[in-house]
Amino acid sequence: MSATQPAATINLAVIPGDGIGPEVIAEALKVLEKVVAEEGVTLEQTEYKLGAQHWLETGETLPDEVLADLRTRDAILFGAVGAAPGDTRIPSGIIEREMLLKLRFSLDHFVNLRPSRLYGTVGSPLANPGNIDFIVVREGTEGPYVGNGGTLRGGTPHEVATEVSLNTAHGVERVVRDAFRRASERPRKHLTLVHKHNVLVFAGHLWKRTVEAVAREFPEVTHDYLHIDAATIFMVTDPSRFDVIVTDNLFGDIITDLAAAITGGIGLAASGNINMDRTAPSMFEPVHGSAPDIAGQQKADPTAAILSAALLLDHLGYTTAARRIEAAVVADIESRNGESRSTAAIGDAIAAAL
Amino acid sequence: MSATQPAATINLAVIPGDGIGPEVIAEALKVLEKVVAEEGVTLEQTEYKLGAQHWLETGETLPDEVLADLRTRDAILFGAVGAAPGDTRIPSGIIEREMLLKLRFSLDHFVNLRPSRLYGTVGSPLANPGNIDFIVVREGTEGPYVGNGGTLRGGTPHEVATEVSLNTAHGVERVVRDAFRRASERPRKHLTLVHKHNVLVFAGHLWKRTVEAVAREFPEVTHDYLHIDAATIFMVTDPSRFDVIVTDNLFGDIITDLAAAITGGIGLAASGNINMDRTAPSMFEPVHGSAPDIAGQQKADPTAAILSAALLLDHLGYTTAARRIEAAVVADIESRNGESRSTAAIGDAIAAAL
Ligand SMILES: CC(C)[C@H](C(=O)O)[C@@H](O)C(=O)O
Ligand SMILES: CC(C)[C@H](C(=O)O)[C@@H](O)C(=O)O
Repeated sequence: MSATQPAATINLAVIPGDGIGPEVIAEALKVLEKVVAEEGVTLEQTEYKLGAQHWLETGETLPDEVLADLRTRDAILFGAVGAAPGDTRIPSGIIEREMLLKLRFSLDHFVNLRPSRLYGTVGSPLANPGNIDFIVVREGTEGPYVGNGGTLRGGTPHEVATEVSLNTAHGVERVVRDAFRRASERPRKHLTLVHKHNVLVFAGHLWKRTVEAVAREFPEVTHDYLHIDAATIFMVTDPSRFDVIVTDNLFGDIITDLAAAITGGIGLAASGNINMDRTAPSMFEPVHGSAPDIAGQQKADPTAAILSAALLLDHLGYTTAARRIEAAVVADIESRNGESRSTAAIGDAIAAAL
Repeated sequence: MSATQPAATINLAVIPGDGIGPEVIAEALKVLEKVVAEEGVTLEQTEYKLGAQHWLETGETLPDEVLADLRTRDAILFGAVGAAPGDTRIPSGIIEREMLLKLRFSLDHFVNLRPSRLYGTVGSPLANPGNIDFIVVREGTEGPYVGNGGTLRGGTPHEVATEVSLNTAHGVERVVRDAFRRASERPRKHLTLVHKHNVLVFAGHLWKRTVEAVAREFPEVTHDYLHIDAATIFMVTDPSRFDVIVTDNLFGDIITDLAAAITGGIGLAASGNINMDRTAPSMFEPVHGSAPDIAGQQKADPTAAILSAALLLDHLGYTTAARRIEAAVVADIESRNGESRSTAAIGDAIAAAL
């Protein structure tokens, strides 16, 4: 699906966000600017002020005009958003829902792509991690994330609160097909569906039936199934069994944080919120949050943001440039010797290794 | 809440179930029979044939008369149920839902208690597990497990499948209060609510508000909050931070399998499905499933089933007997030297160590 003749100009939206977001995005841009210049591509940047701090100053989460403007860009590079945990001025979850999730839903980011790889020199909390190299294709536009629920008799002893998970054939099929395609392009060609179909019967059976149906289009790809609870066990006892995982929005949220933890932490975990139909720009962001406790101190690892920029280039068809960033990151990671470097120093080292 | 003067007779229901269920239950009964006899308690047993095999023979999951009969017992000791993965004769999930979950819901097992402890000699998949000793209080009667959902235009490209999570003030408050009480009786007196309230707003806020309210009744207990995704990270990077976790039915399902994995596997993980109002018998079962691949081979570890019998005695007020089983299990575990023993040999050793 990559464009074979990518454009000579990338019209990039940049949303640095809150906390460590601006610091890690600065390094991602440093690397991105260098590699695209060397590839003869022009990078036009438009920065958008959004996030918890912006909400405090303006009361805005994601105005319609800003969303419309973002739609005119080729892709979005996103840092992190979120208030400090103790900050009671911001209603809990509002930035996440009215901005981050609103972007994913409005721009139809149905493939939430999260690769997990354990690099040689990186410490895993697992005693025997083995060779970890898998991707999670998390559905990004439906499931329990749709915000469909309510409260009856709130605050009384008779309160009832509901959350509705919505799943459609359209939504499940497109992400399952994308996951099979990605599996077919990988050496091991194996796909694992993760769900809980013995309890969540209606959604679970839609996912299972869809996997069975789409599997026929990819006879070279083997597939199996794991309940989400069993998948978390394998994540810590035998993570090398995984190649491509496809799963729903909530299970994907959980399993990708666990996957980041076993591969050395969310400082390295990149992600793409991808609209594979290319009807709107896709968005690339580190899996980590805004980490207000270490913000502004040059303590954050920008590697996840830099790898997210590589995913961005890949999506836009600049595969050589993407591979160069990945190789520079691997070279940098393999030369790490446990000394702590500043955010900028890591960015500099990766840019130098390009 | 334990009865101070427990009855001189325990009227026990036994459901061995499928796969390794009968083997591990035989060992649990061996230990239970010995300890109650020594404590001067009479153990009356009634065995119930239920499970996948029984369904194949009779087409019955859990008939109303059987459920009514079970209600007359003091407690239920449960092995495991479930068909072999490849067995297409049994509709997927039917035994789990129409029997196991039906028991939990019908008998109002609102406290699904799952202790996690890493014993000295047991290998953890974590490189530096630290001192792991926490309990998960999983809600057992509501949330996404209620079976409320449906399918519209099933099998067509326009299919919509829903799953509704139902949460009530009544249901959340009673389990949160139980978790605080358990925390108040533990040395560290710390409770962690695990949810995803930034996305699952309606259910999440009911849980958060309830924890804040009930916390006032337990000023000696400290509490904090983690999103489910962050909780899985801490489970592998810093599990010793946990003391008591309280969470909903689905998050509890996931986190307890992960907890079992980091403490050496589900061969050791016990659980109680407890009706703290004592309006119906509680049910005690190992967290593991029926493991058809190793059934009938004396390969299963009965420790989880034996520890479940200890939880059963505890619930019925026989605390001395419960502590004796736990001590015997600890003694046995600490004398393990990596040699593999049969299911019966482990049961014999624990019975001998009483
Ligand atoms: C911030 C939050 C809404 C988000 C999610 O749950 O998707 C985050 O955890 C993630 O995984 O990107
Ligand atoms: C068998 C299944 C329905 C059950 C659950 O999801 O509760 C099991 O995984 C458990 O944790 O006891």
